[in-house]
Amino acid sequence: MRIGVLTAGGDCPGLNAVIRALVRTANSEYDSPVLGFQDGWSGLVHDRAVPLFDDEGIDRILLRGGTILGTGRLNPDILRGSLPEIRATIARHSLDALVAIGGDGTLKAARWLTENGIPVVGVPKTIDNDVGGTDYTFGFDTAVSIASDAIDRLHTTAESHERVMLVEVMGRHAGWIALHAGLASGAHMIVIPEVPFDIDYVCKVMKRRFQMGEAYGICVVAEGATPVEGSGMALREGGTDQFGHEVFTGVADQMAAAIAERMNRDVRTTVLGHIQRGGTPTAYDRVLATRFGVHAAHAVHRGDFGQIVALRGECIEMVPVEEAVAVLKTVPEDRYREAACLFG
Amino acid sequence: MRIGVLTAGGDCPGLNAVIRALVRTANSEYDSPVLGFQDGWSGLVHDRAVPLFDDEGIDRILLRGGTILGTGRLNPDILRGSLPEIRATIARHSLDALVAIGGDGTLKAARWLTENGIPVVGVPKTIDNDVGGTDYTFGFDTAVSIASDAIDRLHTTAESHERVMLVEVMGRHAGWIALHAGLASGAHMIVIPEVPFDIDYVCKVMKRRFQMGEAYGICVVAEGATPVEGSGMALREGGTDQFGHEVFTGVADQMAAAIAERMNRDVRTTVLGHIQRGGTPTAYDRVLATRFGVHAAHAVHRGDFGQIVALRGECIEMVPVEEAVAVLKTVPEDRYREAACLFG
Amino acid sequence: MRIGVLTAGGDCPGLNAVIRALVRTANSEYDSPVLGFQDGWSGLVHDRAVPLFDDEGIDRILLRGGTILGTGRLNPDILRGSLPEIRATIARHSLDALVAIGGDGTLKAARWLTENGIPVVGVPKTIDNDVGGTDYTFGFDTAVSIASDAIDRLHTTAESHERVMLVEVMGRHAGWIALHAGLASGAHMIVIPEVPFDIDYVCKVMKRRFQMGEAYGICVVAEGATPVEGSGMALREGGTDQFGHEVFTGVADQMAAAIAERMNRDVRTTVLGHIQRGGTPTAYDRVLATRFGVHAAHAVHRGDFGQIVALRGECIEMVPVEEAVAVLKTVPEDRYREAACLFG
Amino acid sequence: MRIGVLTAGGDCPGLNAVIRALVRTANSEYDSPVLGFQDGWSGLVHDRAVPLFDDEGIDRILLRGGTILGTGRLNPDILRGSLPEIRATIARHSLDALVAIGGDGTLKAARWLTENGIPVVGVPKTIDNDVGGTDYTFGFDTAVSIASDAIDRLHTTAESHERVMLVEVMGRHAGWIALHAGLASGAHMIVIPEVPFDIDYVCKVMKRRFQMGEAYGICVVAEGATPVEGSGMALREGGTDQFGHEVFTGVADQMAAAIAERMNRDVRTTVLGHIQRGGTPTAYDRVLATRFGVHAAHAVHRGDFGQIVALRGECIEMVPVEEAVAVLKTVPEDRYREAACLFG
Repeated sequence: MRIGVLTAGGDCPGLNAVIRALVRTANSEYDSPVLGFQDGWSGLVHDRAVPLFDDEGIDRILLRGGTILGTGRLNPDILRGSLPEIRATIARHSLDALVAIGGDGTLKAARWLTENGIPVVGVPKTIDNDVGGTDYTFGFDTAVSIASDAIDRLHTTAESHERVMLVEVMGRHAGWIALHAGLASGAHMIVIPEVPFDIDYVCKVMKRRFQMGEAYGICVVAEGATPVEGSGMALREGGTDQFGHEVFTGVADQMAAAIAERMNRDVRTTVLGHIQRGGTPTAYDRVLATRFGVHAAHAVHRGDFGQIVALRGECIEMVPVEEAVAVLKTVPEDRYREAACLFG
Repeated sequence: MRIGVLTAGGDCPGLNAVIRALVRTANSEYDSPVLGFQDGWSGLVHDRAVPLFDDEGIDRILLRGGTILGTGRLNPDILRGSLPEIRATIARHSLDALVAIGGDGTLKAARWLTENGIPVVGVPKTIDNDVGGTDYTFGFDTAVSIASDAIDRLHTTAESHERVMLVEVMGRHAGWIALHAGLASGAHMIVIPEVPFDIDYVCKVMKRRFQMGEAYGICVVAEGATPVEGSGMALREGGTDQFGHEVFTGVADQMAAAIAERMNRDVRTTVLGHIQRGGTPTAYDRVLATRFGVHAAHAVHRGDFGQIVALRGECIEMVPVEEAVAVLKTVPEDRYREAACLFG
Repeated sequence: MRIGVLTAGGDCPGLNAVIRALVRTANSEYDSPVLGFQDGWSGLVHDRAVPLFDDEGIDRILLRGGTILGTGRLNPDILRGSLPEIRATIARHSLDALVAIGGDGTLKAARWLTENGIPVVGVPKTIDNDVGGTDYTFGFDTAVSIASDAIDRLHTTAESHERVMLVEVMGRHAGWIALHAGLASGAHMIVIPEVPFDIDYVCKVMKRRFQMGEAYGICVVAEGATPVEGSGMALREGGTDQFGHEVFTGVADQMAAAIAERMNRDVRTTVLGHIQRGGTPTAYDRVLATRFGVHAAHAVHRGDFGQIVALRGECIEMVPVEEAVAVLKTVPEDRYREAACLFG
Repeated sequence: MRIGVLTAGGDCPGLNAVIRALVRTANSEYDSPVLGFQDGWSGLVHDRAVPLFDDEGIDRILLRGGTILGTGRLNPDILRGSLPEIRATIARHSLDALVAIGGDGTLKAARWLTENGIPVVGVPKTIDNDVGGTDYTFGFDTAVSIASDAIDRLHTTAESHERVMLVEVMGRHAGWIALHAGLASGAHMIVIPEVPFDIDYVCKVMKRRFQMGEAYGICVVAEGATPVEGSGMALREGGTDQFGHEVFTGVADQMAAAIAERMNRDVRTTVLGHIQRGGTPTAYDRVLATRFGVHAAHAVHRGDFGQIVALRGECIEMVPVEEAVAVLKTVPEDRYREAACLFG
């Protein structure tokens, strides 16, 4: 078989490990060549292809963050309108199947293309761990690990200066990174999008720490956290400052201002940002991404199209796309309660 | 309730995280005091107890390797013979339940004590990941991570000097660490106890690499690996050298000698040893160990005695001890085949 | 002799390593007890003292960030006005000498106290590496190492998304962290306070990269960087937004806006912030801080008061306070030129 | 100018950073092309050359351990006998100068070739930090850092199991790695080649720890350590065991046996081996190696032949080869005494 592969959506540690394992398995087990398309779906539409050989070059990408194919986001409507071009690219290279590595939108596209006669196997990719059908996705462990390391460092600074510190981590809609990084680093409070926060309760937890003689408090906040309605705090949207420049203040900065006012104490914020999604994957993510790549190669040759590779317990299984994209996988209430035992 | 806790068997990153989460949850959710016993089961037999308070001291151990309680191994027969002493200790401190963190032997003891009227909840601990009933155990990810980091470093040295390198990792009976560390670090061959190795096949894979123009080869070997019968190589037992001193040569060193002879090439060995089981746990292990501790506290108060906490997919569940200790969880054949696609 | 010790000013990895080495050396070599004062100079003024014993507890702090004594800033005028209280504290504990670990202000205070009959040995502390008289100060290598790790991670994200990325690191007055972290991580441009930047030149360097076919560019910016006068860009001061909230936009964010406008390209910013000054010190900093502590103990017993310990080449030497505080040690022009060879 | 470059001797983190900085500086500042020779001096003798371009490929090697040019050792007599071939290679590629990156032997060869009309600038390379004329060499900080991380991990295992642990690190003739790694990781004893050890004294220090109530002891041993004459212990040479196989037991293993016997206690050994010299360099080493590369390019164009680049305080200076190779730079007695304050 001749196989095409592309990576779409945001950067994620482990993308290269999937590509490497796919190429090596397709080559060594099935003698199937693999062609990479650049910059996500648009590389398929506009036929920007590079052959991927099983050589030292491909072997070495295992540890490299990012994606050697580049990535990009494509409007689903534009994608649907580009079916003729996609068919042409597929025909031009005599491809028998595609492997599409991406998030929600990419997996839906994989499904839709399969229905339209272009057989695709999906590999789920979300650093936020919010895709259904799979226990975990690669990149998540790396993000949690980076965030935990950073929070470990903040403990001693917060303690030496007797401060409250807020750390904003990734997670627009799901609080998985905040939950795991908070647990791993012994945060005293974790705020996630799934459970609206009461700023007065956050202050209460922090105050109690100081009353108990502790010298500081650390609160991990997912970027998508929101206050409960009717509480004393509402999030401001971005605006323009008096110089006419756009101003966007994240949730942690706004919480910090509110807590500083209520507690009359020095509150500092750290926004981890892009460092959470780049660089060498953890060993865990390299294993998971490698296994996804090996199984994607097998799935293509078995003909498991319109499906995705997924982790279930210790096994990699095939799961229909529907299961993965039906609902966003958010943090269930009992998982948050589990962590809340350790607050304070 | 009044709860006792002990850690038994070999050192393992995450033990302190379990203790911390147990103490904090028992204190904050149930107002239950926790008493630690030192040096494993013998601390219970000889009543060497330390109260564990939910303060800054206990909070800080989250990142610390080892176990603040110390550990030790106790002959199961001696343990069984010490029931009166154990009962006395339990009575002296008015304990309602025990939490025992340990491997196979400890979990069996937990079961046996429960049957003898001393209610115990077990927390499985094995750095080798070879306990049944749970997808993973804490400490394993840390060991894999340390081994992968080490192997990453060996790649460039092996390449610069055009060498074959063998890396011996932990795993007497199960090859999980070798398998995961080998996958994570892009090893060219992985040898595990579950699949006896043919030294000539190992040489063939390495030779093929050099023939293809690659400059080096890395093989990860679990310490418990054994050669296939009838192959050109048999493992020597330890002996005494001409100076009358005991000599024990590990499997990697013996393989290295055999490969050097067959390939007429410089072969070097690295035995990772104790560094795999010490130090700060990875974020993954801190989360898993913390969750085990939280759930052990809940299990005690629910009365789930004779059972262990276990990871199933994304959830922590209670599992009967039998399930965990029935058979050693070894690497299944298809998991090894999955990795073997990437050899060479 | 009886010795007092305090840590003042901002948090810095290695403070605990100095304390540990001082205590252990004073105890084991001279049988001199050491008393710690809490929260910087104010602990001396208000006599908040803790005895520091050479035991397992003190031994273990070697790896810990922050300072077990706490820290604080004290107005020099208040300090000078508190001489009677300081004398009283010294007398109350029969102290023969003090060791003061801190920056510019603390070293000057050490000098002034010595002149007023309170013998002090200074240990220079600045994460920014801008104290004179010593080649390097502890904490700096850790900050550079953390910043480099972060920038390593940004490379692949920037590349996958074809972006310009700005990374803001510490350094109000001196660009040492930016210079070293930029060199260590292969940044394509480094902007430091010592050399005002021309935003058009920064854009030119970045544009040239894209013209040469590179997919991205990374620029490291010290927080104290300023534009050249007469260039097309002036830094705005903080202000209030239309909601009446204080707004402070750092130099990297302002540069990002200017570059995005000029290059019509996605420009992102990462502000590393507090994570640069916390957590476990690097091996380099642990060695340097330990040597400073050992030599501070010797200096006290030799009577080298009004002086500081300093690194010169491979040796620790005593240097008069004047030499350390005369001028801020900034990046010399030829050091910047050395790095500029590698821009683009 | 046209410049050749080669790397000789053992692997060392930072070699690629030197090559990268040399190529980039030679290209951008002087428009001088650079040609790499493979596998050390033999690549020059046998003319195995690869052009090195200032592109993304060369940029990316900054973080990579090993050397992209490969390395090798060449007998100095063979080198001297190959002058005609070397001249021919130089002429064939119209080279104006060479940059030779290597240890003692390579620097001497650089000197000898310069005297014979082939102008060479030397870049000192020794992971053991035992080359004179320069404060530090790249690779050393990485080795110390890796060893410290490993020893950090051993602390908790040793403590949990109440053991004495010996850690063998690199250093045949000089104890720099043992000294720095021991200081950085809080070892309780450090044994280096410069100061012969008395096994009874080592035992005494360890025994005293247990008597003081400590639970364990860690001793760092350089591989080249030797016992004092007349002490109760002499090192055995390697031999053959009763199976006719070669047996080499390192110094740490022999010390372990002697201590176990004398203390009647469990003593374990970890031999760090090759992992100390491979993989990504620390930020410190990347900066130092980069600066060496930049200055080597300048030195070539200034005509500073027969000299080496060297670190002096904070500056890179040129130093005559003689100064670097005159004597092995070993640990001075006062540096060892400085550390000995902290033993026990």
